[in-house]
Amino acid sequence: MAERKTLDERQQMSEAERLRHSCAHVLATAILKLWPDAQLAYGPAVEDGYYYDLDLKHRITPDDFPKIEAEMKKITKENLVFEKVTVTREQALSDAKTGRLGALTERPEPSRFKLENIQSIPEGEAITYYKSGDFLDLCAGPHVMRTGNIGAFKLTSVASAYYKGDEKNPQLQRIYGVAFKNRTQLDEWLKMQEEAKRRDHRKLGAEMGLFALDAEYVGPGLALWLPAGGAIIEELETLAKQTEFQAGYVRVKTPHIAREKMYVTSGHLPYYAESMFPPMELKEPGVNAPEAPADRYYLKAMNCPHHHRIFSAQPRSYRDMPLRLAEYGCCYRYEQSGELFGLMRVRSLNMNDSHIYCSPEQFAQEFNAVNEMYLKYFKIFGIEKYVMRFSTHSKEGLGKKYVDQADLWLKTEEMVRRVLKESGINYEEVPNEAAFYGPKIDVQVWSVIGREFTLATNQVDFAVPSRFGLVYRDKDNSDKTPLCIHRAPLGTHERFVGFLIEHYAGNFPLWLAPEQVRVLPITQDQIPYCEEIVKELRGQYVRATMEFSNDKLQGRIKRAEEAKAHTMLIVGGRDQAANAVSVRVHGKGDLGSKPRAEVVAEILTAIRERKP
Amino acid sequence: MAERKTLDERQQMSEAERLRHSCAHVLATAILKLWPDAQLAYGPAVEDGYYYDLDLKHRITPDDFPKIEAEMKKITKENLVFEKVTVTREQALSDAKTGRLGALTERPEPSRFKLENIQSIPEGEAITYYKSGDFLDLCAGPHVMRTGNIGAFKLTSVASAYYKGDEKNPQLQRIYGVAFKNRTQLDEWLKMQEEAKRRDHRKLGAEMGLFALDAEYVGPGLALWLPAGGAIIEELETLAKQTEFQAGYVRVKTPHIAREKMYVTSGHLPYYAESMFPPMELKEPGVNAPEAPADRYYLKAMNCPHHHRIFSAQPRSYRDMPLRLAEYGCCYRYEQSGELFGLMRVRSLNMNDSHIYCSPEQFAQEFNAVNEMYLKYFKIFGIEKYVMRFSTHSKEGLGKKYVDQADLWLKTEEMVRRVLKESGINYEEVPNEAAFYGPKIDVQVWSVIGREFTLATNQVDFAVPSRFGLVYRDKDNSDKTPLCIHRAPLGTHERFVGFLIEHYAGNFPLWLAPEQVRVLPITQDQIPYCEEIVKELRGQYVRATMEFSNDKLQGRIKRAEEAKAHTMLIVGGRDQAANAVSVRVHGKGDLGSKPRAEVVAEILTAIRERKP
Repeated sequence: MAERKTLDERQQMSEAERLRHSCAHVLATAILKLWPDAQLAYGPAVEDGYYYDLDLKHRITPDDFPKIEAEMKKITKENLVFEKVTVTREQALSDAKTGRLGALTERPEPSRFKLENIQSIPEGEAITYYKSGDFLDLCAGPHVMRTGNIGAFKLTSVASAYYKGDEKNPQLQRIYGVAFKNRTQLDEWLKMQEEAKRRDHRKLGAEMGLFALDAEYVGPGLALWLPAGGAIIEELETLAKQTEFQAGYVRVKTPHIAREKMYVTSGHLPYYAESMFPPMELKEPGVNAPEAPADRYYLKAMNCPHHHRIFSAQPRSYRDMPLRLAEYGCCYRYEQSGELFGLMRVRSLNMNDSHIYCSPEQFAQEFNAVNEMYLKYFKIFGIEKYVMRFSTHSKEGLGKKYVDQADLWLKTEEMVRRVLKESGINYEEVPNEAAFYGPKIDVQVWSVIGREFTLATNQVDFAVPSRFGLVYRDKDNSDKTPLCIHRAPLGTHERFVGFLIEHYAGNFPLWLAPEQVRVLPITQDQIPYCEEIVKELRGQYVRATMEFSNDKLQGRIKRAEEAKAHTMLIVGGRDQAANAVSVRVHGKGDLGSKPRAEVVAEILTAIRERKP
Repeated sequence: MAERKTLDERQQMSEAERLRHSCAHVLATAILKLWPDAQLAYGPAVEDGYYYDLDLKHRITPDDFPKIEAEMKKITKENLVFEKVTVTREQALSDAKTGRLGALTERPEPSRFKLENIQSIPEGEAITYYKSGDFLDLCAGPHVMRTGNIGAFKLTSVASAYYKGDEKNPQLQRIYGVAFKNRTQLDEWLKMQEEAKRRDHRKLGAEMGLFALDAEYVGPGLALWLPAGGAIIEELETLAKQTEFQAGYVRVKTPHIAREKMYVTSGHLPYYAESMFPPMELKEPGVNAPEAPADRYYLKAMNCPHHHRIFSAQPRSYRDMPLRLAEYGCCYRYEQSGELFGLMRVRSLNMNDSHIYCSPEQFAQEFNAVNEMYLKYFKIFGIEKYVMRFSTHSKEGLGKKYVDQADLWLKTEEMVRRVLKESGINYEEVPNEAAFYGPKIDVQVWSVIGREFTLATNQVDFAVPSRFGLVYRDKDNSDKTPLCIHRAPLGTHERFVGFLIEHYAGNFPLWLAPEQVRVLPITQDQIPYCEEIVKELRGQYVRATMEFSNDKLQGRIKRAEEAKAHTMLIVGGRDQAANAVSVRVHGKGDLGSKPRAEVVAEILTAIRERKP
């Protein structure tokens, strides 16, 4: 069974989720057939699959998987009905005590996790079982009709997990699996897994020298961008700067630290303190009074407060609005070391940040322009599938989960909703998941191999600007508080480059490729001519190098391919005589000999236009 | 008298320094004529002038300056000889006790600071006086011949200072003044002072909205770069990136923090701890053992250790050398709050940093290329006067002040010396002022109004790479430790922009100007045409805006001048009809009407070529 969800949430369970959750029951049944004394805890559907947590003396390993899968196969072949049974609390308690729940029969030991679970169900709430064959489980459902609906499945891994995720509880064994309607879907999934492994950003990142994690000296989760990765993030920043310039943004730069007062004012302290690095305690004669306690400086976990202070550093009038402050600012968040993962979960985040301060009248246009910028980026990076998850408030949460300004919530959400609808953008609305200060939009994208990434968050903020006393002088000479849109379409360098590595399998388009052009003279005689080509390209800021050695050409081509150099220009005596080069593009192969000037022009155009 | 210097240092005293120090004696004489009970301490020459520290009941204010200066004038008119007298220790002690030293006659009170000073002179060292008229001072000299050599002088300010600069000692009054060979030099200096005031980077920085210091929320000495300043530093970074790309550098990016181990390895801890921000104490389960003390993270005060770790993140061979890692890295240094000054003395430093790892054979060429880059920058910024102060080690300091590798010191210094000599660069050698790890070069430049700035430091480092175990595989298959050149020709954004504000008086050349082009339609009818021009320019990333209001043109031109917009394009009906614009450049005035295409092309060329 899965942890209890609200009725709403259960009804929203997709067909795929029902399938995966049902397969967790099949897995449990198979386990019990092999090890009848297994004590089951929870077995929910998760992204892509499901798991079941259980306590068992035998230590399950992947070597056991074929045996378990064979039992599961039998159960799906039997095509058992998932039957829902509503029972009284007394009946449920009794079945748990006799070991019958989460089991195939009564057993000498009580079903202790099920027992605890029943006790946690509030009085008056219905208690339901799902029964399939002999297997009886405490479960709120829903399920598919029959075990035969599960067309294909596979166990994927086994790990330790604390009961209810709490490290004070006993450790259980967690068996993970996947389930699909049919064999074709499973095969596709397996293929994608293989492909994802081949494209793993940690593996390619190391092979290509893009980044390094140096837990010993620098610290865990703090990426060092090596020269090849440095070239990529430089290109991304240039893209952002050019795009933002054309969209009327102005650039600022702010320190990476601030005094405690900044984050108390923003509201991040004390509530967000756990996600921030601990403070630096600084004695400040002349700033603190001599007898004052030491001042605390924090590493910034977000750029907004610094930008707010820039807003208020100069008097602002309606003529200055909208004011769009942009910065590739580096923020620091304290993620638990166990949760760190390559570039995907890190502690230093180079963020494509901006804050747009505007009047309510300007909001729709500004918000729409932000969305258009996203679409423009999606096109550049060949991102075909995306969704904008629009999280709104709930009336019940006002004053608790959400700042207590009912009218502003409704008005702002309606503005956002209208823009999303009218622009025809792909979005879905999720109630009761907004941020404290306003509605937000999480942008999810899918890589070319179909894996999902949360790249960026847009947020409308109608509360914090007033906490910082931000105002602009309006036409009527009165002081108004601006709205603020937080946006970061390219997310952080860390996550975005992590995504791009997988998306391109490291074969970046020319404009992004760390090594854009490698020139290969066939013999020594072509070296001066090749050096001239490299000089010409580098003069135009193309990352071009020449490689000559006594190795055979084929070996050198292979090395360039392995290094993922985008374009090879191979020059033999005939090429040189014709003032030409032979072009070979990674993934496209040999494109033949062409006039040098034409090739150089094509390269420059492809870079300037950021061709895919 | 001045604090005792070595004979070498005294002999190096320039004529101007002797003049200034002599004027301190004249100042002291004048003070004693007015207040015979003044107790004199020290009166050295300093940059641009001199001061004398003294204890006196009467609180001297600038209102007293005319009276004191009148007395000084009398003394220089008398043209007294500065007479050197060598005395025995007994004689000196006796003269101090009778109040005769640092005075015009014997006095009821002993000359207590002089007495203490005599006692601090090592036994066996000569004790000398300088006598001018009745004034007798304990002084090692040297001086000018006569008081009449001081052609012009002026008292400039008075402040409090602790005796010997130690806050445990009593507070004295410090009177500052300047002195010159003649009136013309003084007038020039006064004019420069006026000009420097007019060009004060704090004043212009605020007026032009370049930066803000927000001690209350962000912290003292932590500059916020506002949009106009953001445009300037962006241009500077682009200049650095382009220049460095052409010089074969590669770009990296590193976090702003690191673990304690990093700075213990580099040798910065514990010796440099006082100049760093205090650490963040972080409990790291999974990284620290559970029972281990909390880990310490430090804000980086320099980029080198991070770059060293990038060097060692990948295996390096002689083929990779020289490896030139570049980063505009932001470092943090804890300057005492009393020492902070605008952008000139700050706590966050955005540094044009790079580390060049090379073999000894490559050193000369690399070092020379660095110097050439300096000269290139000087040309771009119209810096005509500079000097490279080459600081070398002393044999006596080996193993104490300097890492104990006599041969490496001599060899490296000789390499540097040869490069400096052969390149014909303007340099001076200063013995016994090197860094611990190698010889260094401080680059001093003069702004257009003749003020001196220390912009940058180059350093040769032959010790730290081995502390980090940096090696490259050489041709003979052995591991060698590279030399490392630290260099930052554009210094920090903070100091360099502070310098540039003064240098240009805020009237930046077109490529650097925050507002490059302001387009002014004379009447409403020209608005669409002007918008087209703005669009065309902005399409090429020119910072262009249009301003229209009902104010008269003259008023709008005046406003643009005040805002230091570089180029104004004024468009009337006739201009528009001829597809032309009237050009007005800040500081050059009206340049007449020209075809629009020609003007746009000129603007783009001036920006691309970074014309002065």
